[in-house]
Amino acid sequence: MKVLVTGFEPFGKEKINPALEAVKRMKDKIQGAEIIKLEVPTVFNKSIKVLDKSIKEHTPDIVICVGQAGGRSNLTIERVGINIDDARIPDNDGNQPIDKEVFKDGENAYFSSLPIKAIVNELIKEKIPAEISNTAGTYVCNHLMYGLLYLIDKKYKNIKGGFVHVPFIQEQVLDKKNTPSMFLDEITRGLNVIVKASIKYDKDIKVTGGTTC
Amino acid sequence: MKVLVTGFEPFGKEKINPALEAVKRMKDKIQGAEIIKLEVPTVFNKSIKVLDKSIKEHTPDIVICVGQAGGRSNLTIERVGINIDDARIPDNDGNQPIDKEVFKDGENAYFSSLPIKAIVNELIKEKIPAEISNTAGTYVCNHLMYGLLYLIDKKYKNIKGGFVHVPFIQEQVLDKKNTPSMFLDEITRGLNVIVKASIKYDKDIKVTGGTTC
Amino acid sequence: MKVLVTGFEPFGKEKINPALEAVKRMKDKIQGAEIIKLEVPTVFNKSIKVLDKSIKEHTPDIVICVGQAGGRSNLTIERVGINIDDARIPDNDGNQPIDKEVFKDGENAYFSSLPIKAIVNELIKEKIPAEISNTAGTYVCNHLMYGLLYLIDKKYKNIKGGFVHVPFIQEQVLDKKNTPSMFLDEITRGLNVIVKASIKYDKDIKVTGGTTC
Amino acid sequence: MKVLVTGFEPFGKEKINPALEAVKRMKDKIQGAEIIKLEVPTVFNKSIKVLDKSIKEHTPDIVICVGQAGGRSNLTIERVGINIDDARIPDNDGNQPIDKEVFKDGENAYFSSLPIKAIVNELIKEKIPAEISNTAGTYVCNHLMYGLLYLIDKKYKNIKGGFVHVPFIQEQVLDKKNTPSMFLDEITRGLNVIVKASIKYDKDIKVTGGTTC
Repeated sequence: MKVLVTGFEPFGKEKINPALEAVKRMKDKIQGAEIIKLEVPTVFNKSIKVLDKSIKEHTPDIVICVGQAGGRSNLTIERVGINIDDARIPDNDGNQPIDKEVFKDGENAYFSSLPIKAIVNELIKEKIPAEISNTAGTYVCNHLMYGLLYLIDKKYKNIKGGFVHVPFIQEQVLDKKNTPSMFLDEITRGLNVIVKASIKYDKDIKVTGGTTC
Repeated sequence: MKVLVTGFEPFGKEKINPALEAVKRMKDKIQGAEIIKLEVPTVFNKSIKVLDKSIKEHTPDIVICVGQAGGRSNLTIERVGINIDDARIPDNDGNQPIDKEVFKDGENAYFSSLPIKAIVNELIKEKIPAEISNTAGTYVCNHLMYGLLYLIDKKYKNIKGGFVHVPFIQEQVLDKKNTPSMFLDEITRGLNVIVKASIKYDKDIKVTGGTTC
Repeated sequence: MKVLVTGFEPFGKEKINPALEAVKRMKDKIQGAEIIKLEVPTVFNKSIKVLDKSIKEHTPDIVICVGQAGGRSNLTIERVGINIDDARIPDNDGNQPIDKEVFKDGENAYFSSLPIKAIVNELIKEKIPAEISNTAGTYVCNHLMYGLLYLIDKKYKNIKGGFVHVPFIQEQVLDKKNTPSMFLDEITRGLNVIVKASIKYDKDIKVTGGTTC
Repeated sequence: MKVLVTGFEPFGKEKINPALEAVKRMKDKIQGAEIIKLEVPTVFNKSIKVLDKSIKEHTPDIVICVGQAGGRSNLTIERVGINIDDARIPDNDGNQPIDKEVFKDGENAYFSSLPIKAIVNELIKEKIPAEISNTAGTYVCNHLMYGLLYLIDKKYKNIKGGFVHVPFIQEQVLDKKNTPSMFLDEITRGLNVIVKASIKYDKDIKVTGGTTC
């Protein structure tokens, strides 16, 4: 079994991307599965192309993309990617799409095919704060999540895939007032747990990760 | 022209629903259009049935559903409804669906057909804090938003529809520490502006309301 | 009876100061008492001098200073002013004191002599969100609060005095994401209630406004 | 040289107190100084008595009390303790003082005599998120901080003392939505750094840790 895990380059004013740092530090073997680690550019379209090429090359069974969600306290397992690009700031190549579709022939949205509730449960058992998120935003993170699930739908039916957001790490908040962060080694440990749960659960479990608004 | 605006009954531990209170206080005529006000139950499925019945009866041109998002500071114009019910607490009839589809034959998601960016712009011009939201949650609010857009897609192609979340009002936060609220009359004024903008703009404007996570 | 109420000039990147705007809009007579309104500069030392001069001129019975606390959701009635100036940004005259005493011969701190719990209670009865705050910061707001209470201690023993922080108003948060604000007319109404309660209660009431950290 | 470090028993609904857990895990020797670790009850008055007894017994040069501030993201070095007990919930012995003085013959407040800015600087150099706080609340934490500084002022003039608040640790937020936490080993590492900086700096450094409200 092979699991492809991707992390983004830094973007915006940040000099590092905790997603990428954590991905690099992950184990190389988890439950017997080979972990393939890929850096993707924080660039619309190009990020999906780099991902597609790597999927073709490595033929993974599971793909997990990881991005930074500064300001969140917990690991958040994304539920859904939506067919929209709407960027508040330019990406690393200067593109700033506004209200454009990711793919014209795609569904309005795709749901993660990872066992997202089971993943949260396993993380909590391991004392790593985690919850479901219902939005990956409208920037490159959502773009890549949607792109991955589009590719799975169109070309790679047997792959399970989804997206995980990680908080800032400590060194990113040293100059910020009262901003949540997570210890890098704990994020890394969390990613290992996420892979393990993704391998272990063929079907997701039925527990609520719901909201009330 | 007719505009149907709905507000929910109170739910959870709250005794009033600011969405309903504001809807009740809206003008009866806006830009010559008749405003039809409808209370909907905070109940899965039943809320959509009540809405469908009212659409049949009144044949509105525009439908705007309004709900409470406690903890948010601003009026939030929802971008997308997703095909999932995942309730953290039971609804007012005791139903608590977990990871069920709203409609089996629906799309994964539907985008609001209101001019959401133009609405935010008009609200800001009127000094009412507002922004785009990318998630209406997974409770009865998202359920009704998705249901409305499903009905439009299947049966009422000419209707424009969408969903707006409003903050707590002052009397709801008096016993809470440091929780944002909005003055009820300002929410009401905001809803009037939202209807006006929805009538005025056939096509949405191209400005970013995007995010960076 | 006379009540002196002060509001600061705008500071930092803000073009208006909601404290000053609300003070200007207050009633001129409350419970028979004359309300004297004073604009004070957002400047260390000078603000206290302007206040002292006005106290000498008007001989008020009660003095309430009002400032902006951007990011807070509620009216906050300050409990204590501390003998320290520690400015994160320069004041409106370019001064940026770091860890200096406000007055060398002052106490380490002075407690508000307003009936702060009774004020919160009356505000809540009037449906205006309010709570006690245990810190007025270390900028010009705390400086003026401390200065007022120092002057009372040294020269004006019969005056009751204290400080109130108000949230941003709507027009200040229009370009900010999810930031709490309060409707200006509600802040103004709140200040009128605060004066009324300050006149009504000679002694404060015994209810908790406490914290648990 | 001897440094006494105290941690509280758990209180409220929490089963553990991260302050105590971190104190227990601290080094026994730092820069040649002996570290004495003391558990104190989360009880008004009794906590100060236990502290006083331990000071008498051990004659430390530095005393650092540590408590939990759930909801804060960073290590916060407290600037000032105030002469007030105002408890929102009962302490572990059922006492709930409201607006009582800690000591009738004490100052209104005492400032920490630790080098608080230098401590924050050293923590940041070590990549541990930290900032100055201007309020330790009005519960047992402030009570003990004030009590310590009162004892120093009255009886132990040569001791340097102060208070540090620590965030929730991960296992405390697993059932909470989006609540900041810090990795226990990082809190522990932070406490070691705080002791080191307290030994190293006789005088505090002049940098701003100020606020703007």
